[in-house]
Amino acid sequence: MDINENNSIGIIQTQSIRVVEQDNPLKLECGKTLAPIDVAYETYGSLNNSGNNAVLICHALSGNAHVAGRNNANDKKPGWWDNMVGPGKKIDTNKYFVICSNILGGCSGTTGPCSINPATGKPYGLDFPIITIADMVRVQKLFLDKLGIKQLLAVIGGSIGGMQVLQWAISYPDFMKAAVPIATTSHLGAQSIAFDAVGRNAILADPNFAEGQYDDEKSPDHGLAIARMIGHITYLSEKGMRNKFGRQLRNGNSYNYDFNSEFAVETYLDHQGQSFVERFDANSYLYITKASDYFDLKNGHSSLNEAFANTQCRFLVVSFTSDWLFTPEQSKIIVNALVANRKNVSFCDINSPYGHDAFLLESETLGSFISAFLNAAFKPEKELKEAAPLEQDDKGIPVIAHAHRVRIDYEVIESLIEPNSSVLDIGCGDGTLLENLIADKNIQGEGIELDEKLVLNCVIRGLPIIQHNIEDGLENYADKSYDYIILSQTLQTIKNTEKVLKELMRVGRKVIVSFPNFAHWRCRMQLLLNGKAPVTKQLPYCWYNSSNIHCLSLKDFDEYCSKLDIRVEKKIPLTKTSVSPVKLAPNLLAEQVVYVTSKD
Amino acid sequence: MDINENNSIGIIQTQSIRVVEQDNPLKLECGKTLAPIDVAYETYGSLNNSGNNAVLICHALSGNAHVAGRNNANDKKPGWWDNMVGPGKKIDTNKYFVICSNILGGCSGTTGPCSINPATGKPYGLDFPIITIADMVRVQKLFLDKLGIKQLLAVIGGSIGGMQVLQWAISYPDFMKAAVPIATTSHLGAQSIAFDAVGRNAILADPNFAEGQYDDEKSPDHGLAIARMIGHITYLSEKGMRNKFGRQLRNGNSYNYDFNSEFAVETYLDHQGQSFVERFDANSYLYITKASDYFDLKNGHSSLNEAFANTQCRFLVVSFTSDWLFTPEQSKIIVNALVANRKNVSFCDINSPYGHDAFLLESETLGSFISAFLNAAFKPEKELKEAAPLEQDDKGIPVIAHAHRVRIDYEVIESLIEPNSSVLDIGCGDGTLLENLIADKNIQGEGIELDEKLVLNCVIRGLPIIQHNIEDGLENYADKSYDYIILSQTLQTIKNTEKVLKELMRVGRKVIVSFPNFAHWRCRMQLLLNGKAPVTKQLPYCWYNSSNIHCLSLKDFDEYCSKLDIRVEKKIPLTKTSVSPVKLAPNLLAEQVVYVTSKD
Repeated sequence: MDINENNSIGIIQTQSIRVVEQDNPLKLECGKTLAPIDVAYETYGSLNNSGNNAVLICHALSGNAHVAGRNNANDKKPGWWDNMVGPGKKIDTNKYFVICSNILGGCSGTTGPCSINPATGKPYGLDFPIITIADMVRVQKLFLDKLGIKQLLAVIGGSIGGMQVLQWAISYPDFMKAAVPIATTSHLGAQSIAFDAVGRNAILADPNFAEGQYDDEKSPDHGLAIARMIGHITYLSEKGMRNKFGRQLRNGNSYNYDFNSEFAVETYLDHQGQSFVERFDANSYLYITKASDYFDLKNGHSSLNEAFANTQCRFLVVSFTSDWLFTPEQSKIIVNALVANRKNVSFCDINSPYGHDAFLLESETLGSFISAFLNAAFKPEKELKEAAPLEQDDKGIPVIAHAHRVRIDYEVIESLIEPNSSVLDIGCGDGTLLENLIADKNIQGEGIELDEKLVLNCVIRGLPIIQHNIEDGLENYADKSYDYIILSQTLQTIKNTEKVLKELMRVGRKVIVSFPNFAHWRCRMQLLLNGKAPVTKQLPYCWYNSSNIHCLSLKDFDEYCSKLDIRVEKKIPLTKTSVSPVKLAPNLLAEQVVYVTSKD
Repeated sequence: MDINENNSIGIIQTQSIRVVEQDNPLKLECGKTLAPIDVAYETYGSLNNSGNNAVLICHALSGNAHVAGRNNANDKKPGWWDNMVGPGKKIDTNKYFVICSNILGGCSGTTGPCSINPATGKPYGLDFPIITIADMVRVQKLFLDKLGIKQLLAVIGGSIGGMQVLQWAISYPDFMKAAVPIATTSHLGAQSIAFDAVGRNAILADPNFAEGQYDDEKSPDHGLAIARMIGHITYLSEKGMRNKFGRQLRNGNSYNYDFNSEFAVETYLDHQGQSFVERFDANSYLYITKASDYFDLKNGHSSLNEAFANTQCRFLVVSFTSDWLFTPEQSKIIVNALVANRKNVSFCDINSPYGHDAFLLESETLGSFISAFLNAAFKPEKELKEAAPLEQDDKGIPVIAHAHRVRIDYEVIESLIEPNSSVLDIGCGDGTLLENLIADKNIQGEGIELDEKLVLNCVIRGLPIIQHNIEDGLENYADKSYDYIILSQTLQTIKNTEKVLKELMRVGRKVIVSFPNFAHWRCRMQLLLNGKAPVTKQLPYCWYNSSNIHCLSLKDFDEYCSKLDIRVEKKIPLTKTSVSPVKLAPNLLAEQVVYVTSKD
């Protein structure tokens, strides 16, 4: 595989295909029908003989089918996701057959409000029926049928594209192996609806709007530009804007004392508004934002959890820390619903200053996740298991060794787990233990980890992994939904011990806990004789730089279990070098310990 | 004092006064002149004989002079801050003479763009000169001069009103004793400028705007409504909007499938836009938002720190946790600049879900702070010192006892401090130690505390108190700017010990640290003999619920000081009951310890 940042698709033409004929109209969610429907699309790479390498990309509000390459040699810019899609790129067109179509209601070739209404011979304008995200997805499915695509390896999309991904997984559960909803939400909240509504108001109030029957000479450019400006503010983070523009003035250092744009951020928005007006249609803006406002995955279901019940694919949900339009919290709602259904789901909240736009800009980090996830979904499972553990990812990002992990404790834990059971590993690091358990014991394994790089490593290993802080509990995990929960060398670093332990006991049939023994004789002696906080090989940090915020011994934990009515099923005191349990005076001689516990 | 929530000012008339005569125009910051200038105002209560009880309230963008009471018996609503201002209310008109005037450029009686331009006999419209916050404040000063006000007890205002407060403190440093800038900023960031600019664009693009020469029959209502809607989104928090509106539909549970407003949040914004159009002028909106965008306190100074150099009043800076328009971080910038100048400043970030609007809605909490702060500023200093420590505030909010404080340790610390020195008490709790030090040693004392209720208690005691997490360091405190820094019974709860200690050593000439001794013989014996994490009277918590995240002994701290090149000037090992130092085997026999340290 030749990884070359400059590799590009090259010159590519947008094509068009009729997917709904005039005499066989499509019934839409709103109850109206629509025909004909044409779809504009581009494809990159080629479908393999097994037909199992097709990846559908769903575009966002202002995107189109032109994902990568250039439509002609003079194009100033390539497609909107050219940094992600191409030969040898993160979504590798040497390996995958990549497809993208302009959405229903769009203005870049697919039937929308600026298409000719066959009933009048004029553009639809506001006579175009209201469409929904589900309608868009139905048209995409009809389009793939026309193309002869029988299955998708994955559906990928950000923002409104991510809504389409979620809808795909629910509408056509057996059609794809993987879904990657990025920077998106299961439903718009009041604030997002409000921003959309104000933008639509600006368009509808523009005197040139003419009830949607405007023409190129006189179109509602002011209204559309205002809508776009509002949108653009929500796509950037406050910090991103501050860093990019601050209070910089366009000309010089003194104020103009008039109402012309003079702050750099004003001229930026003017430019964004103006360039948008040149390439986008006001009616399409109305229809697509309305579809977005109407989007609520739980519609037609009793709950969001129930909406996901029939999905069959694996999910990679991605959010960005500074995205305040579709926030990490909104992604977590999706993740929680999938977790509640025990679906195969991974989640990462990528650290980025770029706000919502990060899904277009963080191609390196986001791409590493997508690439690893696609790779795992594409490989036969057998091959995946045999893959050697990676010491660094495919971009050379070094794998952080999980400092708290001690092999002895891994080996003992592995020996305690029944074959074919289900295991949730809290603080699973790079996934070594889970991978071993899957290989040796054929378990169904899932992980929780806080560190972004370690999460990526788990995705590379093909493990379902959720980026999550265990201090926040396990709210959406059902009672007794795992045979085992593993909390290895982590208890002493948890702030709210009681809350977390109670959660683990609720969710796991058995909870395996390991921790360093603070009452080991070396610790006792150091405190007794030296009068200092102990520093040992098992407790290697000084009092001031230790991540261990609790000091506990076997006896402490015994009493704690007794207090919380936790049953201690096994207690395996260990030294730091041998898997043989310490038999004599364990609270004195054990350096670490593994407990198997449970609670009714 | 009769505290009665229903107490109101009653019926009150807005008055008008000419402050700039036609023949003596005011020169504005933009270089143009303006005359005549009339000011609309209201006053409540009466000026006392000493003339030292006048409080000026500065209103925000859409406010006016009508703060409290009703202008006539049929008014549906009272003035915009009626919940705060009135007889017996938080800003008590039985005690204070409260004044508010409509700002320059406004549309509620003070000269603005809808006033008649004497040169043309028509409303100014866009011929009105561009004004600044400083211009508004100059007109307010001229107005107070006309009223015969010689000094202000305080200037108080939120949002754009807060900008005026800051400007007052800098423009007229000897005119007021106290300033309360609320939910405001020293300068607008790019995002706020962007929102304002889009709102102005909507007004300017409205065909009814007519270059500002519109009339009542045909005014730019659409544009102004859109501007107001954008503003309103920024006044509420995302969470507040979600809780208030969610995805609720106005009528029933099913979508209309058209472009009419149907979500509750849409009809709310429609209503806000519409009612604003009825009471506000589009030109005023342009001029006031532009003044706000131009506002940058450091203009004309080398830095923000330098801008505050000549201020003389005490400050109470207030922000709200969920305010994303003028964020707590922006208030902290103001606080940091005041701290860098060693000004008398208190700061509280009030926990509220209401976003920017909290300054109008959180009248109970905000009012408690303002009331206590005004009270302290109004009282002669002597009287303040003699005031009995309060066990609860004047609304009966109970005072949380500071659990980590132990009297023995207080007494010893007090004995170590030289009279007339400057002291910064980190984690100062309710201010008991500081108050004692001020009374007994005449120190200049300031506090840092994280808990909102304890911060309020310090304000009640008249202490300068900054709500701040010491883990975030002391960035804006100058090197060696305090004779003493006190860190009492807090070291063991700090996560990043090294960072914090280094900061304290940098800022304080001497740093007094006290902590419980983990190597006391009872601790040693418990670990040695029982093999359990110690629980003693001085270390009263079990391993799982302790807020002590570090265990350290005298010996540990000695070694640490040696490692960091910290000089130990005094070490006073103590039991828990006596101020007499433990002389024999202190690391074994002391239950707690007080260190006096320093570093060059």
